[in-house]
Amino acid sequence: MIAQFSIIPLGVGVSVSQYVAKVIKVVDESGLPYRLHAMGTIIEGEWDEVIGLIKKCRDILMNEVERVVIDIKIDDRKGAKGRIEAKIKSVEEKLGKPLKT
Amino acid sequence: MIAQFSIIPLGVGVSVSQYVAKVIKVVDESGLPYRLHAMGTIIEGEWDEVIGLIKKCRDILMNEVERVVIDIKIDDRKGAKGRIEAKIKSVEEKLGKPLKT
Amino acid sequence: MIAQFSIIPLGVGVSVSQYVAKVIKVVDESGLPYRLHAMGTIIEGEWDEVIGLIKKCRDILMNEVERVVIDIKIDDRKGAKGRIEAKIKSVEEKLGKPLKT
Amino acid sequence: MIAQFSIIPLGVGVSVSQYVAKVIKVVDESGLPYRLHAMGTIIEGEWDEVIGLIKKCRDILMNEVERVVIDIKIDDRKGAKGRIEAKIKSVEEKLGKPLKT
Repeated sequence: MIAQFSIIPLGVGVSVSQYVAKVIKVVDESGLPYRLHAMGTIIEGEWDEVIGLIKKCRDILMNEVERVVIDIKIDDRKGAKGRIEAKIKSVEEKLGKPLKT
Repeated sequence: MIAQFSIIPLGVGVSVSQYVAKVIKVVDESGLPYRLHAMGTIIEGEWDEVIGLIKKCRDILMNEVERVVIDIKIDDRKGAKGRIEAKIKSVEEKLGKPLKT
Repeated sequence: MIAQFSIIPLGVGVSVSQYVAKVIKVVDESGLPYRLHAMGTIIEGEWDEVIGLIKKCRDILMNEVERVVIDIKIDDRKGAKGRIEAKIKSVEEKLGKPLKT
Repeated sequence: MIAQFSIIPLGVGVSVSQYVAKVIKVVDESGLPYRLHAMGTIIEGEWDEVIGLIKKCRDILMNEVERVVIDIKIDDRKGAKGRIEAKIKSVEEKLGKPLKT
């Protein structure tokens, strides 16, 4: 199962990158495969691993802020692993060229 | 904490409402406050109640289909309850009129 | 085409309902079919009508704030109209009971 | 303005990568800065450039399929450019290490 998530704290000003950094530190140290991009972070694992990590990130921010908005998008496909890379490769193969990833 | 979620099964044709009906049956029988609308379902509760219910819905569909895409949007605010209705009322009060809800 | 959207202004504090009210006022006066709920607003129309309305809402908020995060979820199905109500009815019919909507 | 979008065609089977490839071809040839990842594509530009490109992708798929679900997440911040890379760099600088991007 792969999941993309983003957590936006409200009430902390226009820039939220210091909070994003705290979340990504947790993800980076989690041991789960992940990829950070400009609109969120993609992680891969079983449901409990993935949702457990997102909850941990939420708890860390809720220690410091009043309100968070969390977006989670899950692509769950039976029997599929390593999809953070495989989904991109499949598109590159179909177009026969490397893409900006 | 309130959360909106939708689960789209892939590989089952253009219409997915029979699967949506199975999900909503679980939500309706869960006892959690909820509201169904045309683009998803909003539920309210503690993290484990809300996410546990979404997992139950996912598991039911994954018994029948190969792949699902799940979108979850969480609005988590300290000390706030009954927000499925309160968030709407707060906007209606500010505009001084009932809205289409 | 039906679309759900939400606009969150950043840097304006924990409560954003005064900004949501300004957005909903524009939607309510637009003449497009809509339905407000606790996590966003669903509107129905052609692509240019729907996206044009969302842009108008974004422009109004960007006159007052530095940054907004906009989420748009579109369900576009050939030949289908009146789906804000029809999608709910189809689920209620399958479950044979009225639901919390 | 940066926007992440994904377009999922319904009624075309479990795998949708052939349709994703058609969309990414349009994005790759558009000249707009973009980055493809496993859960969507991020593009940067003015509102009309970004939304116009997403509409073009939608129109191409709707020539072939009955129904699409489109998710768009926009982060619109006054006076900010080159954010597809800058948002990531700002987190890497705060953590003092390169991340998986």
